[in-house]
Amino acid sequence: MKALRVALLGCGTVGTEVARLLTEEGAELAARIGAPLELAGIAVRRPARHPEVPQDLLTTDAEGLLRSDIDLIVEVIGGIEPARTLLRDALSRGISVVTANKNLLAECGPELYEAADESGADIYFEAAVAGAIPLLRPIRESLSGDRINRVTGIVNGTTNFILSAMDETGAGYTETLEEAGRLGYAEADPSSDVDGFDAAAKAAILASLAFHTRVGAHDVHREGISEVSSADIAAARELGRTVKLLAICERVRGESGEESVSARVYPAMIPRSHQLAGVGGAFNAVYVEADAAGSLMFFGQGAGGVPTASAVLGDLVTAARNRIAGGFGPRESAHAALRVQPMGETPTRYHISLDVADVAGVLEQVAAVFAKHEVSIAVVRQEGRTADANLVIVTHSAPDRALRATVDAIAGLDVVHAVTSVMRVEGEST
Amino acid sequence: MKALRVALLGCGTVGTEVARLLTEEGAELAARIGAPLELAGIAVRRPARHPEVPQDLLTTDAEGLLRSDIDLIVEVIGGIEPARTLLRDALSRGISVVTANKNLLAECGPELYEAADESGADIYFEAAVAGAIPLLRPIRESLSGDRINRVTGIVNGTTNFILSAMDETGAGYTETLEEAGRLGYAEADPSSDVDGFDAAAKAAILASLAFHTRVGAHDVHREGISEVSSADIAAARELGRTVKLLAICERVRGESGEESVSARVYPAMIPRSHQLAGVGGAFNAVYVEADAAGSLMFFGQGAGGVPTASAVLGDLVTAARNRIAGGFGPRESAHAALRVQPMGETPTRYHISLDVADVAGVLEQVAAVFAKHEVSIAVVRQEGRTADANLVIVTHSAPDRALRATVDAIAGLDVVHAVTSVMRVEGEST
Repeated sequence: MKALRVALLGCGTVGTEVARLLTEEGAELAARIGAPLELAGIAVRRPARHPEVPQDLLTTDAEGLLRSDIDLIVEVIGGIEPARTLLRDALSRGISVVTANKNLLAECGPELYEAADESGADIYFEAAVAGAIPLLRPIRESLSGDRINRVTGIVNGTTNFILSAMDETGAGYTETLEEAGRLGYAEADPSSDVDGFDAAAKAAILASLAFHTRVGAHDVHREGISEVSSADIAAARELGRTVKLLAICERVRGESGEESVSARVYPAMIPRSHQLAGVGGAFNAVYVEADAAGSLMFFGQGAGGVPTASAVLGDLVTAARNRIAGGFGPRESAHAALRVQPMGETPTRYHISLDVADVAGVLEQVAAVFAKHEVSIAVVRQEGRTADANLVIVTHSAPDRALRATVDAIAGLDVVHAVTSVMRVEGEST
Repeated sequence: MKALRVALLGCGTVGTEVARLLTEEGAELAARIGAPLELAGIAVRRPARHPEVPQDLLTTDAEGLLRSDIDLIVEVIGGIEPARTLLRDALSRGISVVTANKNLLAECGPELYEAADESGADIYFEAAVAGAIPLLRPIRESLSGDRINRVTGIVNGTTNFILSAMDETGAGYTETLEEAGRLGYAEADPSSDVDGFDAAAKAAILASLAFHTRVGAHDVHREGISEVSSADIAAARELGRTVKLLAICERVRGESGEESVSARVYPAMIPRSHQLAGVGGAFNAVYVEADAAGSLMFFGQGAGGVPTASAVLGDLVTAARNRIAGGFGPRESAHAALRVQPMGETPTRYHISLDVADVAGVLEQVAAVFAKHEVSIAVVRQEGRTADANLVIVTHSAPDRALRATVDAIAGLDVVHAVTSVMRVEGEST
């Protein structure tokens, strides 16, 4: 059988592993596919920086490589350009693509899907979300006969490492971030991770697949973890909760029955008994709730060159099999075209800690503010009876806008010295 | 677009849900597939027993139904015949099949796969193992570029319910089985579950997919849970372990480097810190270890009409998409053709409890028996110094045959009054 020619675009930690496995596991992969894969070339910017791959395969001319009778592309360059133009052109010429590029998909997915659709090429991207964990294929294929209602994920290893460490040691955010950097879990510029951009791109991809609706990175409400304090973590612990950065994709039913999609990323308190609470260190896990299937959880390594290469190669084998079988994988499914609900309308719950003048006298005033904003209180805890008393309030579910306004109004009360912690609560019934 | 005609064979709890969802979710499924699905008929033995499905679709003539221009079959009859003959004939005529029939696949899978292969039809069976949990598609597609080394699963809800309850209440096996029957978690004849037949069929399917090797039900070493006593559970608890019925599929490397496959089902002690230890009640979970992906876990509902229908419909949508796209799903992959290793050769670890005459004098004799069989001892715990002393031994890894022989020899020692518990230990380093 004629070999299928594979072009590798980019050669960082994932690309290097893909090149190695394509070489070392060539015979096994050929047996599984029914034809050998031939690594035709590796496009990089600076060939001298890649001594660990076959030197004769390196080229700086990605476009030229893609014009050399290529069947399949693995794209691990990252970023928008030149990946976007290279992949769109290749897809429109019928070349199938496997990519790990979450930002590209979250920003420009639809134009790539359309190019694939028109030519009959495949585009697979399992590695773009939750690394080695098989997640996108289950969502868009295994659950394709079901109705997904909610996807709640820990999809960023760096932030999960930091929050887990803060929970274990009681240390503050800044010193824990520094420690994560020293250990190799945070990059020199950690903004993509700690400010939630990485998780938001993944949430956009998950929401698009789960709800058959186009959801881009700009549709995702995003809050990072840099404001999470050791006081927040301690407050969570006292209530039997822990803090996780969650990517939440939810089907929301309005009062008149119409459905919309909410996609959001923020740190939230979840009960320690929740299955996501035990996911420590740099691991990823995603909890999926569907009408018929019920609750499912997927757990594994969300990053790293070797685990991510596993997801890339799985997609590559699938795309290669399709090339031989003559069919193609699932296309973009955006027929539901649900409205994306703004964060202000989205029902959430808040945990609020206040430093107050005197608890006995304050509660009535605070409760009046909640009532005025139609926010119902679930739990109140009062500590101390002195000038430095502490009041903790957990709300029932209410629109986020009403909760925000409530917090602002409370902060303006004379009897409230300070709002010491505001955090959303997830993973328990409202 | 012309409708794809679906024949439903069987109408028990799963079939009834499939029929309901095909009707209620028809428009949504059509949008996802690109063509509507038409439920062409439901073959049952006694139509009068199925008042909850459209009566005009019921027929007792399955063969006739399958001759009426059918595109796709959902088979939920169960058992070997008539499912085997009906499906083999339909597949050879190019009709794609979705089945939840684990016993049929574990007994006669290869002849069905061959029929599908020759005609170009699909056969999908996600629902056959672990119900609603997307597991087979991840193993044979997402991990198709990786090397799976081990699959360890809790794949039978009835036995997990019983063992979890025994662990929580301290009650014995017989009364807990009765309780499970009262609550609807065990059938009137529970043998298929408690004797491990159900789990063994699933292990055969998992091992076949994970190791690209034909593994049938007869290749799976099988032990059920009816011998598990409250004393075993208590002994596990004392060592920080719990007892689970595990289906284990393992790639074993012999001393000369050749690989074989071990597939086995038995109750075993696992550490309480293991991810599978927390899987309680009737839930299923499967832990997969692969070279590149590392450790993955999949968790969810393993049985029940509605969850299982989710898996069936996911396969049906996939098979329908393939019918439209012109390709087909992954074929049987048995190229590795690894040897199936007999249980006697398979390395395991034992936990052994003994009632002995006098610990101080006995240990030397017992240790000599272990040494003679070349079984290395990892932990010894002695309790009591009287005529009724107790000795607990946990071994290092050794061939199962040597462990069995050691237990037999120890049982024959004069100083050993009784071997009170023998159980394998899994989920920790050897």
